[in-house]
Amino acid sequence: MKVVEGMRATPASDRLRVGIVGGSGYTGALLAELLLARDDVELCAVSSASLVGRPLRAELPRLRTELAFCAHEQVRGVEAAFVCLPHARSAPVVRRLLDEGARVVDLSADFRLTRAEYEEWYGEHPCPELLPGVYGLPELYREAIAGAELVANPGCYPTAALLALAPLRTLGLVDVVVDAKSGVSGAGKAPSAATHFCAVDSDLVPYALGGHRHYPEIASRLEGRGRVPTLTFVPHLAPLQRGIVATVYAQVEDPPSAAELRRRYEERYAGERFVTLAERPPQLADVRGTNDCRIYPSLDARSGRIVVVAVIDNLMKGASGQALQNMNLMFSLPEARGLE
Amino acid sequence: MKVVEGMRATPASDRLRVGIVGGSGYTGALLAELLLARDDVELCAVSSASLVGRPLRAELPRLRTELAFCAHEQVRGVEAAFVCLPHARSAPVVRRLLDEGARVVDLSADFRLTRAEYEEWYGEHPCPELLPGVYGLPELYREAIAGAELVANPGCYPTAALLALAPLRTLGLVDVVVDAKSGVSGAGKAPSAATHFCAVDSDLVPYALGGHRHYPEIASRLEGRGRVPTLTFVPHLAPLQRGIVATVYAQVEDPPSAAELRRRYEERYAGERFVTLAERPPQLADVRGTNDCRIYPSLDARSGRIVVVAVIDNLMKGASGQALQNMNLMFSLPEARGLE
Amino acid sequence: MKVVEGMRATPASDRLRVGIVGGSGYTGALLAELLLARDDVELCAVSSASLVGRPLRAELPRLRTELAFCAHEQVRGVEAAFVCLPHARSAPVVRRLLDEGARVVDLSADFRLTRAEYEEWYGEHPCPELLPGVYGLPELYREAIAGAELVANPGCYPTAALLALAPLRTLGLVDVVVDAKSGVSGAGKAPSAATHFCAVDSDLVPYALGGHRHYPEIASRLEGRGRVPTLTFVPHLAPLQRGIVATVYAQVEDPPSAAELRRRYEERYAGERFVTLAERPPQLADVRGTNDCRIYPSLDARSGRIVVVAVIDNLMKGASGQALQNMNLMFSLPEARGLE
Amino acid sequence: MKVVEGMRATPASDRLRVGIVGGSGYTGALLAELLLARDDVELCAVSSASLVGRPLRAELPRLRTELAFCAHEQVRGVEAAFVCLPHARSAPVVRRLLDEGARVVDLSADFRLTRAEYEEWYGEHPCPELLPGVYGLPELYREAIAGAELVANPGCYPTAALLALAPLRTLGLVDVVVDAKSGVSGAGKAPSAATHFCAVDSDLVPYALGGHRHYPEIASRLEGRGRVPTLTFVPHLAPLQRGIVATVYAQVEDPPSAAELRRRYEERYAGERFVTLAERPPQLADVRGTNDCRIYPSLDARSGRIVVVAVIDNLMKGASGQALQNMNLMFSLPEARGLE
Repeated sequence: MKVVEGMRATPASDRLRVGIVGGSGYTGALLAELLLARDDVELCAVSSASLVGRPLRAELPRLRTELAFCAHEQVRGVEAAFVCLPHARSAPVVRRLLDEGARVVDLSADFRLTRAEYEEWYGEHPCPELLPGVYGLPELYREAIAGAELVANPGCYPTAALLALAPLRTLGLVDVVVDAKSGVSGAGKAPSAATHFCAVDSDLVPYALGGHRHYPEIASRLEGRGRVPTLTFVPHLAPLQRGIVATVYAQVEDPPSAAELRRRYEERYAGERFVTLAERPPQLADVRGTNDCRIYPSLDARSGRIVVVAVIDNLMKGASGQALQNMNLMFSLPEARGLE
Repeated sequence: MKVVEGMRATPASDRLRVGIVGGSGYTGALLAELLLARDDVELCAVSSASLVGRPLRAELPRLRTELAFCAHEQVRGVEAAFVCLPHARSAPVVRRLLDEGARVVDLSADFRLTRAEYEEWYGEHPCPELLPGVYGLPELYREAIAGAELVANPGCYPTAALLALAPLRTLGLVDVVVDAKSGVSGAGKAPSAATHFCAVDSDLVPYALGGHRHYPEIASRLEGRGRVPTLTFVPHLAPLQRGIVATVYAQVEDPPSAAELRRRYEERYAGERFVTLAERPPQLADVRGTNDCRIYPSLDARSGRIVVVAVIDNLMKGASGQALQNMNLMFSLPEARGLE
Repeated sequence: MKVVEGMRATPASDRLRVGIVGGSGYTGALLAELLLARDDVELCAVSSASLVGRPLRAELPRLRTELAFCAHEQVRGVEAAFVCLPHARSAPVVRRLLDEGARVVDLSADFRLTRAEYEEWYGEHPCPELLPGVYGLPELYREAIAGAELVANPGCYPTAALLALAPLRTLGLVDVVVDAKSGVSGAGKAPSAATHFCAVDSDLVPYALGGHRHYPEIASRLEGRGRVPTLTFVPHLAPLQRGIVATVYAQVEDPPSAAELRRRYEERYAGERFVTLAERPPQLADVRGTNDCRIYPSLDARSGRIVVVAVIDNLMKGASGQALQNMNLMFSLPEARGLE
Repeated sequence: MKVVEGMRATPASDRLRVGIVGGSGYTGALLAELLLARDDVELCAVSSASLVGRPLRAELPRLRTELAFCAHEQVRGVEAAFVCLPHARSAPVVRRLLDEGARVVDLSADFRLTRAEYEEWYGEHPCPELLPGVYGLPELYREAIAGAELVANPGCYPTAALLALAPLRTLGLVDVVVDAKSGVSGAGKAPSAATHFCAVDSDLVPYALGGHRHYPEIASRLEGRGRVPTLTFVPHLAPLQRGIVATVYAQVEDPPSAAELRRRYEERYAGERFVTLAERPPQLADVRGTNDCRIYPSLDARSGRIVVVAVIDNLMKGASGQALQNMNLMFSLPEARGLE
């Protein structure tokens, strides 16, 4: 079914020309679906190293488009580009796109850390001169994003954890435990023993107890008061496709009352379209397929600890949805466009 | 298929006469299955308030027995009884059975707490004169169980949490977070909005953030050094039928090295048949259908915190299997009989 | 978040006034979500017998609306109404709404059958004078729907089965087996032993082997050539929330070649927005959340039988999506509006 | 935990010496678990091409053994051998083991078909001189199995389908449709796009519509009366780990009444330990982890067709359990030993 030009509200010449580098994985495919649903955007090119020439629809039957995958280097001449490549392979493509004048949202980890952090967790950085990128968590860094040429789209775990913790910063964070549970799509589309149905179904597996690469992304943005808060982060693989549930345990210098805690969150996120306070512990069903983060702050009176639950769809607010939100900000478009 | 007497190794007169009060739920049914597989036990009676007269096989097609459900008061004349009733309804039945000379393993919460704790979390106790029961966690209280007339079978969460924490007691526990994930069978067989397939599948829900009734069962047995450790316990409902994964975060006064930590666990559980140290974070698949608890202790070097993962099958080590283990101990039978 | 009037393209006075009777179940809630996303529709009232006065958002956190549930009889003054009540309870409400001038899409079984069929399968009909309704399967009965005051929205199984079989009618259907697998949402939101997570997960259960109420809905619309085709219909409950996979086995008088078979389907559904021929056996993932039916016809050369696979999202094309499609047709709106 | 010799009932010298070739997949690992639980069997060797030297426990934490994987050619000197290799790779190993005097249960497809059938569906046969093997479906071919040196363990789908159909043979089978749904373990342990959790979860996929390799295994054993019954077989991949549900639709020359049909099944399977007639459509939960096949025959009065549902655990009765049952028969051991 071809889109009939006349049915669109935006004339072709006014549409934003967009490309996706790495469109065969979960995040790239979802970005394509989101972009194809907009009439103010022209999805010009979607690349895939292994599928060049193949129609998108053959791989992604949900998409209604005549586009075929191109090679990465054929994504050019666009105003906005999303790069969905693995870390280290992403940075050189990002540099090329920036050189050609595109604004870029990079979904890899290549621009989320300082050079020192990157080298500790990932190894040598291919393009250190571009570091650091603007960290694309709009609810925390909206202004910087608006003016950026290059936005580093946050990891899925850090998105949930940082949104859960941000309102506590000024209370003096002392100690934080992030116990996070993720659906399998967070591990990517490549088949492996760990993503085999029989390894995941009816099970729930903690992993990376020695240290997960999202640790520095969270730790470096916690901001205590005077002192650096301690952080323990343990991710778990849960038997579900999409979604992150982050249960965050925090000790602060100035423990608030339950009512003050709630008010603090309400004030911090007043007016935010994509962060909602929940009346009860939120469920993934509340956010699946949406760009929403639902947060439930509570006070554990027995221990004095703050317990915050945050849930997101890891492919939306945790990846492609947030990437689109960032693109909207970068191009001064309504922030929620294409995400409602 | 009738069991042919001649095929059993134990003559009928030597068999232990056993009854189950409340046999239509998950734990009672599993106990029946475990007991029917033993040839040194005679399963004499299984009761159900709502199914009197109905053959067990009609409700539980896996069971090969000619028994039919009887009324609760018809479970009598047995040497050992398992009581699988809701709290408060269990205690009076337990008293009756004790009066009649049976030894009892009670799977409710009625005898796990002190009177004060019980009244805080459950309300008035029907038979306070029987408090406290012997807490039936064999790896911690084996000797007391061996001589007991009444054993309080532990809750599923406390079983996993306490086995994970026991080796840390002498290090001076300061602060504990138990983030636990449970399968749905832990919530029982009664249909409800929360156990509907569509509410559970593809979701993962923290609950009881204001306080779960298993909290005092864990807290009262933590034992710090001089001071009472703080405890936060947050359970989650995961989209799986059976199993508990407890991720336990502990701060101690004397933090050990990683090697010392491991050795401490190895020593504590040396010779235990049902507690195994895992080489990697354990999976529920490793323990499903078994009475095993697998534990993986680790040190989070960045925060100095100890992170312990413990997994059990909530219906086995977390309920019916452990109940059978307790019965074996109470009657001086080999502890693992019927559980291998 | 209140919808700002000024952001809508359609002035309030031009919007279609719509109500939903029975909005707390799966189909009513999804209809509310679909309708709220449209700016040419005013969702005026959503009723629920048990939730009167309660905000929709409290029950359905995904919805962004200030509406609260009203009583069924308070749904009035609307131009279009969706009735999502159980059979027999639906018909009197439908009559009232028709009397008051509304056009109605009824999602129950009350108007899908002849009176004789209804009495055989459901019992006495509360409003036989309204029978038969127009059967709301647009791809088969589009013209009748366009002029109808009352449309009987088809059952989920019949939607998939009839779309799979329609292109075979003129070949002379002789014998049909419909082996259908459904997600649990098809059984509704009410908790029961059969919808408990532990009863559904890891299982797959055939049911209604003695006859399912959707049988006459399919059988009466098969249309053989001269003779009445035999039909066997066996539904299965599968461990998934949403979706129907219908595997249809058909013997016809004039067996086509594989190429002719394919061409027949292509021609029959050319131009249809919501029926797509698949290149490979379709997956539920291809249609989840959409109003699409994907069909894969094939010829089993060894037996000469035709095997057709049809998949739909049972809550969309099998219920709420199709209901909206019907409403669009009834009001001469673009058929796909709100469904893309 | 080492097994203490003194605790076994059978002296070492009387134990059957058994080996497994290919022990790292699902069926080999389950065979190891079943064999290790027996005290009349000595599991002497378990091989794996890729894991030589590695302890079984490291790969299969459920197993309590000190054994390490050996190379395939090191499985020798055994009385009984299970070969769990892919087709074509299995036959040469089988020949070697037979030459060395072992009796063999082969779990591949190498000895289930005639040479002509094999060449049509699999290609050239490596050892045609050994064809045909005895087909190891004990309920149909018990006597031949008892005397066999080489037993071809049936495929999982054919086991369910043939047990469902066997009682109908003498009624004159005319036409058969087997619509079968299988758990993912049936596809093996190797990761692939099709077995990725996100491809399987929440979906249900028909496959091999052009012809599945289990077709000839079923078709050649249907036996009509005078004429060859037509057969259509369509397998589906369901979102569950273990289990097969076969819904079988049969037309016969002499349709029985419902009561006659039931009686026919009861008589056919009277005395069978592992085939049970169900009172209601059976569930996988009834057979999970067991060697049982549960069958529910019914008559579809409207069409005159017979509908039979058969469920098995594909890894037990559909593979490893049946293999053990075959070994018991071959060595004149009680047929159910190790399977209760």
